[in-house]
Amino acid sequence: MDRGGSTSSHWHGPHPPGRPALPPSESSPSATPQAPVPRSRPLGPGLQILLGLVHFGFVVTYLSEPLVRGYTTAAAIHVVVSQLKYTFGISPARFSGPFSLIYTVLEVCYLLPQTNVGALVVSIVAIVGLILVKELNNYLSKKLPVPIPVELIAIVVATLISWQVNLEDKYGVDVVGLIPSGLQPPVLPTASLFGQVIGDAFALSVVGYGIAISLGRIFALKYGYKVDANQELIALGLSNSVGGIFQCFAISCSMSRTMVQESTGGKTQVAGALSAVVILFITLWIGTLFEDLPKAVLAAIIYVNLQGMMKQFRDIPALWRTSRVDMCVWVATFILTVLFNPDLGLAASIAFSLLTVIFRTQLPSYSLLGRVGDTDLYRPVEEYNQVKQVPGVVIFRSSATLYFANAEMYQDALAEKTGLDITSILSAKKKLEAKRKRQEKKEAKRARKDAKKDRELQGELELEKQKEIAVIKMREDLRDPSLPRAVILDLSPVNFLDTVGVKTIRNIRRDYGDIGIDVLLTGCQTGVVESLQSGGFFSGQVTKACLFSTNHDAVLHCLSERTDGSHTDSESEEEDMPATSF
Amino acid sequence: MDRGGSTSSHWHGPHPPGRPALPPSESSPSATPQAPVPRSRPLGPGLQILLGLVHFGFVVTYLSEPLVRGYTTAAAIHVVVSQLKYTFGISPARFSGPFSLIYTVLEVCYLLPQTNVGALVVSIVAIVGLILVKELNNYLSKKLPVPIPVELIAIVVATLISWQVNLEDKYGVDVVGLIPSGLQPPVLPTASLFGQVIGDAFALSVVGYGIAISLGRIFALKYGYKVDANQELIALGLSNSVGGIFQCFAISCSMSRTMVQESTGGKTQVAGALSAVVILFITLWIGTLFEDLPKAVLAAIIYVNLQGMMKQFRDIPALWRTSRVDMCVWVATFILTVLFNPDLGLAASIAFSLLTVIFRTQLPSYSLLGRVGDTDLYRPVEEYNQVKQVPGVVIFRSSATLYFANAEMYQDALAEKTGLDITSILSAKKKLEAKRKRQEKKEAKRARKDAKKDRELQGELELEKQKEIAVIKMREDLRDPSLPRAVILDLSPVNFLDTVGVKTIRNIRRDYGDIGIDVLLTGCQTGVVESLQSGGFFSGQVTKACLFSTNHDAVLHCLSERTDGSHTDSESEEEDMPATSF
Repeated sequence: MDRGGSTSSHWHGPHPPGRPALPPSESSPSATPQAPVPRSRPLGPGLQILLGLVHFGFVVTYLSEPLVRGYTTAAAIHVVVSQLKYTFGISPARFSGPFSLIYTVLEVCYLLPQTNVGALVVSIVAIVGLILVKELNNYLSKKLPVPIPVELIAIVVATLISWQVNLEDKYGVDVVGLIPSGLQPPVLPTASLFGQVIGDAFALSVVGYGIAISLGRIFALKYGYKVDANQELIALGLSNSVGGIFQCFAISCSMSRTMVQESTGGKTQVAGALSAVVILFITLWIGTLFEDLPKAVLAAIIYVNLQGMMKQFRDIPALWRTSRVDMCVWVATFILTVLFNPDLGLAASIAFSLLTVIFRTQLPSYSLLGRVGDTDLYRPVEEYNQVKQVPGVVIFRSSATLYFANAEMYQDALAEKTGLDITSILSAKKKLEAKRKRQEKKEAKRARKDAKKDRELQGELELEKQKEIAVIKMREDLRDPSLPRAVILDLSPVNFLDTVGVKTIRNIRRDYGDIGIDVLLTGCQTGVVESLQSGGFFSGQVTKACLFSTNHDAVLHCLSERTDGSHTDSESEEEDMPATSF
Repeated sequence: MDRGGSTSSHWHGPHPPGRPALPPSESSPSATPQAPVPRSRPLGPGLQILLGLVHFGFVVTYLSEPLVRGYTTAAAIHVVVSQLKYTFGISPARFSGPFSLIYTVLEVCYLLPQTNVGALVVSIVAIVGLILVKELNNYLSKKLPVPIPVELIAIVVATLISWQVNLEDKYGVDVVGLIPSGLQPPVLPTASLFGQVIGDAFALSVVGYGIAISLGRIFALKYGYKVDANQELIALGLSNSVGGIFQCFAISCSMSRTMVQESTGGKTQVAGALSAVVILFITLWIGTLFEDLPKAVLAAIIYVNLQGMMKQFRDIPALWRTSRVDMCVWVATFILTVLFNPDLGLAASIAFSLLTVIFRTQLPSYSLLGRVGDTDLYRPVEEYNQVKQVPGVVIFRSSATLYFANAEMYQDALAEKTGLDITSILSAKKKLEAKRKRQEKKEAKRARKDAKKDRELQGELELEKQKEIAVIKMREDLRDPSLPRAVILDLSPVNFLDTVGVKTIRNIRRDYGDIGIDVLLTGCQTGVVESLQSGGFFSGQVTKACLFSTNHDAVLHCLSERTDGSHTDSESEEEDMPATSF
């Protein structure tokens, strides 16, 4: 822990006194340290500039709020665990890679008997003291113009006590030790470390930027100016590049400190400049005075200031009530980040949150629509009482877009909802056709035989033949009236169609067309029609006449067609066959 | 290469002679070997049973057609590269892990000068001969009852020549060597290899199953029966488990051979049993005769039979015409699988194809809707000529669902399409308010001062005050008529709403409400309304009255409201202020 540059976000643009439109999201007005954002080599900033130049800012759109909050909470857990060794005054082995947090906790538990009592006492006193003063701050927040600088007081007091009591020599309490005063000479980054840190550096760049840009947007909205995502990314990268050469912490911003600064009236870069001067003063001259500061106190400050992060656990019940899927994203992000560390964890979390989109569209609800009274509105039959299905017309809608991951379910759901076992109807039909063909052949044969033979068996054969015809006729009759005349697929929730989707609709049209049911499409967006076109859906037989703007138009078309008594080409051919064969 | 079990898919259910509904997708009617599906240890089958039991069959839904075809093409490339060493008679080092294909090709190129001329000549002769006879097969396909068994002839002829000429000793051509005759004793799987092969085994299970189930479904559709995905998965796993103990190839099925078998009349399991008996006969007694068969001939057979796979490259131009995104999936799957081998490649390809869904919904087209003539239809203004926007009402629609990845773009697009720079209007409004407040304070001060002072300056002050009021009034007047009365968000393409989506709509309603524009939602599905509800969208001020079934209803509501002259609560308060202050 060489040195930390205190940074807070500042903004450009108009700065009228207008009342705050958004309440601060963290109740604690105290400053939180940079701890959750680990220190990076200049590789991270370099990455940020590069990413900014290639307009990588869009990646932040994948960092949804539940993900960022789950991620920062998990990062806080990582920070807490990394500080445990100072609190207990022990030296556990270092672990890296997946599950290193678990190993570290186990190692700390294993080493607990070797706890340095002095360090533990210092920790407990510091934590209790900090919490008490913080509560006092909260309690007096309206009366005090500025909160009590409790961390500063804690550091000064702890240093004084440590120096007077000589905690280090008497009780073996680990202290900060030599603090180089003055500015460090600029050092070029160690290129050999790039391979080791690239994962963390990438995660750090993206998350640090994500936090900065979302905070920036909150204030942009409040004060009515615009934030250019890529400009911010490049600016952040440049700052971090310069800072990295001087071995600074990576720069991001602190929600709570920004809120404090804004509420105390600091609205321009002057506030940032002032606080930078104070830090410079401490760095150059006063820093050396704190060599006796016990590390346990620093750890205590970190714990207490991570309270705000820990409060984010309250998101879980809140999200449980509002959106279960988003709760899953929060919890999964937290667990993945705790287990696989911030770098891999971020990648896995983003992948998971993208998968939720798939899951959400992959398991849609399917419904049959019916007409609302005498209006032209069509609503799901299951959900409304006054909704009635139009006789002879089935209107089917999926709540989600139709694409490869749910194309098969779409067909299954259609068959289930319509109650038409299309495969068995088709196979029955094919058997029937085969039977008819066989019979026609038989008849032809028989006709030839009959010409030769005498007519004594004629009566019996005729009887047999009539029986078979009766069976066929019965089946044909049985099939006809129960089947709907048309199936209307309401495609208004479809966002896009891939080749699998086009093929699915084509198959449905073909299969239902084969058993004499017309398939109409309604509510297609322009892009969907284009996909149907380029996917070869329309052909000589299938024209754009099967597309309708609204369900009502399609229903009117079906009803008018029925009263006319005219069928589509494909079915009239096949339906007329039995009639003519008699 | 111990032994290969020739398998072809067979099916249950009715088997009428019905004419084929689907043409064979591969033109070559010849048998293709199992080569593209590499041999697996029994781990793969064990996995298949396990996955079947946990109803893992759904994973196949992620294997869209472009993905499977790209994947099998890449697998074919892997197989070809693995056979190159036999063709050239060289012994390259083995590589594993990512990019191993590239390394192997480079190694083969490096070793080319050591080519065994005998092996190369045998290869070329075999390849040319096979291709010629296959072309003959294609040419005579209608006249021959069964295609010429070219592979069998090639093997017999090659073995005879090799035995007579003694290719192995004279020219150093690598031959198959000792073939154990009879059945192998059953061997338990080598558990220590599980770690090494689990990735390949998993990919093999999933893809082998995917190919089998898709072929099964083609015939299920054709003959009108059902395929239970999980039953098939368990059956495949059991077969592979038993086969694996006897060191068989993993079982899947071959499109072309199944088509041949079906077209020659083999429709029940009897056909499978017969072919199994033939294979058993060869395995038990005839196999040993082929010890002199050059490996180069086997490689040649593999190359020639992978022609069908290579023909899948034609998918690229076809997909370019029908669906660019699906073409990207094909190409990306191919490249990923070639580079990262079939195991990692499959995972990466599935991830990529899922990402395409995100990309498709992340970059939707946004449009303003207008009314079509005097109908109640609303269509995008850009796309139709007769469509005209309703004066004072903006109807906005995104072609895709609204969720975290495109929520910000939705807001930006709305601002762009409506031409309302909401942030600057809001900030102007806030400045105005601040000014008014300051002025009110000033006036109050002045009033107090005025009471003390004499009235000589009254005239000048009044003038100044009037100027300021004029400025405010001008701005207020300038703002009012140009702004629309209402913004209608058509949410009919929205499949689901996450918390970010709800927050976005809430923000839009709040921001536009602040400048006096009413925001109405139309076409919400039931799930969307539920999400709005649980997401806390509705409150005291925002009731479900802002939801409308259709755009026309919402427009009628806006128009009737305007003629009534009544405003919503929030705006009337703020709009009336300047009026009363004068």
